Amino acid sequence: MKRTLIREIFTTKPIDQEVVVKGWIRSVRNSKKFSFVVLNDGSDQDSLQIVVDATLPNYQDVASLLMGSAIGVKGKIVASNGKQPVEMLALEIEVIGRTTEEYPLQKKATSLEFLREQAHLRIRTNTFGAVARVRHELAQATHKFFSERGFFYLNSPILSAVDAEGAGEMFAVTSFNLNEPEKFPKTNGKVDFSKDYFGKEAFLCVTGQLEGECYAMGLGQIYTFGPTFRSENSNTTRHLSEFWMIEPEIAFAGLDEVAELGADYIKYMINHALTYCSKELEFLLSREESVLKLDHIETLKHVRDSKFQRVTYRDAMAILEKCGKKFEYPVGFGHELQTEHERFLAEEHFKAPVIVTDYPKQFKAFYMKLNPDNETVRAMDILVPGIGEIIGGSQREDKLELLQRRMDELNMQQDPLWWYLDLRRFGSVPHAGFGLGFERAIMYITGMTNIRDVIPFPRTPKNCDF
Amino acid sequence: MKRTLIREIFTTKPIDQEVVVKGWIRSVRNSKKFSFVVLNDGSDQDSLQIVVDATLPNYQDVASLLMGSAIGVKGKIVASNGKQPVEMLALEIEVIGRTTEEYPLQKKATSLEFLREQAHLRIRTNTFGAVARVRHELAQATHKFFSERGFFYLNSPILSAVDAEGAGEMFAVTSFNLNEPEKFPKTNGKVDFSKDYFGKEAFLCVTGQLEGECYAMGLGQIYTFGPTFRSENSNTTRHLSEFWMIEPEIAFAGLDEVAELGADYIKYMINHALTYCSKELEFLLSREESVLKLDHIETLKHVRDSKFQRVTYRDAMAILEKCGKKFEYPVGFGHELQTEHERFLAEEHFKAPVIVTDYPKQFKAFYMKLNPDNETVRAMDILVPGIGEIIGGSQREDKLELLQRRMDELNMQQDPLWWYLDLRRFGSVPHAGFGLGFERAIMYITGMTNIRDVIPFPRTPKNCDF
Repeated sequence: MKRTLIREIFTTKPIDQEVVVKGWIRSVRNSKKFSFVVLNDGSDQDSLQIVVDATLPNYQDVASLLMGSAIGVKGKIVASNGKQPVEMLALEIEVIGRTTEEYPLQKKATSLEFLREQAHLRIRTNTFGAVARVRHELAQATHKFFSERGFFYLNSPILSAVDAEGAGEMFAVTSFNLNEPEKFPKTNGKVDFSKDYFGKEAFLCVTGQLEGECYAMGLGQIYTFGPTFRSENSNTTRHLSEFWMIEPEIAFAGLDEVAELGADYIKYMINHALTYCSKELEFLLSREESVLKLDHIETLKHVRDSKFQRVTYRDAMAILEKCGKKFEYPVGFGHELQTEHERFLAEEHFKAPVIVTDYPKQFKAFYMKLNPDNETVRAMDILVPGIGEIIGGSQREDKLELLQRRMDELNMQQDPLWWYLDLRRFGSVPHAGFGLGFERAIMYITGMTNIRDVIPFPRTPKNCDF
Repeated sequence: MKRTLIREIFTTKPIDQEVVVKGWIRSVRNSKKFSFVVLNDGSDQDSLQIVVDATLPNYQDVASLLMGSAIGVKGKIVASNGKQPVEMLALEIEVIGRTTEEYPLQKKATSLEFLREQAHLRIRTNTFGAVARVRHELAQATHKFFSERGFFYLNSPILSAVDAEGAGEMFAVTSFNLNEPEKFPKTNGKVDFSKDYFGKEAFLCVTGQLEGECYAMGLGQIYTFGPTFRSENSNTTRHLSEFWMIEPEIAFAGLDEVAELGADYIKYMINHALTYCSKELEFLLSREESVLKLDHIETLKHVRDSKFQRVTYRDAMAILEKCGKKFEYPVGFGHELQTEHERFLAEEHFKAPVIVTDYPKQFKAFYMKLNPDNETVRAMDILVPGIGEIIGGSQREDKLELLQRRMDELNMQQDPLWWYLDLRRFGSVPHAGFGLGFERAIMYITGMTNIRDVIPFPRTPKNCDF
């Protein structure tokens, strides 16, 4: 008999029918004449309760199984008065995979911190199962959202020879044997990268935007959804060395269009999660250690249904100067908007997501379009309560001479970006886009507070296990 | 007025209505009283013909625009006797971005080879627009297929400390400054990777399978869809250094389930492409340089509707031995199935996709489940006409002692894979999965013959431009 997923049983409630389920035991509770086995197969947040009669031939074996053991059960579905609408009466049980007392996921030791060291097993817990299913649904929502709006999915390259953000925080990639640095090929005393795999220095991408612009100039509207990398030495709850980004880019568009697109996208994701992950969100927000509680669901509904606020950087700084609150970092035009400022704006002042626009050019990347004031650029950040910046975007400089001038100001080499400049030489058009850090969006929606807990296998300084 | 995508105009045919379109000029043909401008905005394979009356104020300017220039046109949609059902009568034209005689995409110079050096611009051609839209739709189909069947999307890690395939063809990733190898930190004369970013040697993943197995042991059914890497020095039309793979993994399943899943997935993709990309496929297959012609569409329909053939490696070798055909590489049990053999089986013998199973263990990775014959493993490859292997999969060894014995035979270190072995220590279950190279699937469906032409920015030896 083919196995049925537990999610399907909860959905179709096949009362009085015989089905086969297979999964891992979450708990066994023994009474005199029965055992109650709680079985989870990963398909659903909830587990199926299975009533095992002591008359079953291998009852003794089953009743002594440890948490984490895998079994297959043929049984009859019956209505239940328990937490779930249905439960199962076992007819036959097959023990598929046993476990031992050394199984790390014991009830007493499941702090999120401990589980990070068990990233290969933590997916078997309620918390990480819930996060994984939310992550899955938000990825599906992302593809649906952009596809429905006529955006084409672009796999921008991961390996790259240029430092697109000019931030110098890139990992180097090589086929040289790092164990033998003395054997690196050299010419005139310098390492000769023409002998490396790609014939030049290569890096892991920090963004797919520049290639995204190339594709927007042909397909009109594109989005990327892929991994990006930073080698900065940030050991915080908000930074990963490897994380996933979504970056749409629209030709014939300005900042207003992408600001609206960004707001729509966040609302779409929230609505999707509320629709398809209600069990998961309820579970995650009900946990004792969750900082956000169940009323976060109301907050999400509010955000989904409300208009995002708009404010210029200049006005945002004026608000911060006048608000009377003490900040660690200075405020006022010419200072950076720090996370504490962003969170004040979103959480206390506007009490809603807020789109901050027109930042001073010195804080932003070289490719952003200069405003007529010659001082600010057509940039925007979308700030959400609890997180701060979740989206960063801009209209791009589409005038060749202005872009070149800005690169000169920043002492950037133009040669490696000849192809990027070509976009301004041949049929250049106004265009704009943004980047959303996927993990930050998941944190925002689930209320998880450490970014290491919303990506399956986190990579951070000194951590590349599994 | 907001712009309308050309795809929408072809779909809704808003006859007699005024709309605005924006795009890039594919050609301008001038007659005495009119110009005919062919405009493409990337949303559709086909371009919109725009009739420009000589009485328009900026007619002279428009009539002299070069191919590749960007314009915005306000105009009225009218029925057409041309190739398209509708065309546009221009009322106002705005010149948005000009181009020059140096624009590389001139009609005379658009060989696929030349266009590879213009990867930033080639998306503006009919061929690469078509490939990009097919690629987009196949990615959407992939997420839909697995999601509908209850698989969860897993973002397996890109950075990895283990050589999962044991093939040693991995790129090294470091934050050491490669320009100064003499400054690499050393301890006892050896490079000290504990001082590198991750505190150990790190690489780019060759597969997400091992982490996929971890997640299948919790979520039941998962799939990955992400970039993978090979540093092998293969300069062929079928190899990339960076390519995208789809890797499903199912708990409580054997080889038959994943063979069936693989066949269903290929059929689903074909059906999706035939449904949503018929214009694109027709265009690509009608090109003079296309090896496959329009009847490839009939072949695809046939594959979609037919049962995939099954044959064991042993029987496949017997077929090859008896077929009377001369091969470059030897045939018979104990020899590798080469591409020439795979293509003979799929194209000439079975004339259909064929699933070859149960390969000798020495040709396959350490994690595949040993058959009772002690000689072959529960592996399968799906071969398709024109390409050869498109899917490789297996049931995984779920018995700890057998897996460890195999690793010992291959002199593999077990320590770095402690977490992978844990899956066999705690609640181990039969499980199986496969990998599909996304680019090979696109080649198969579109008939494109060089893998560099089905990924936006190909990375190959000595090539990491753009």
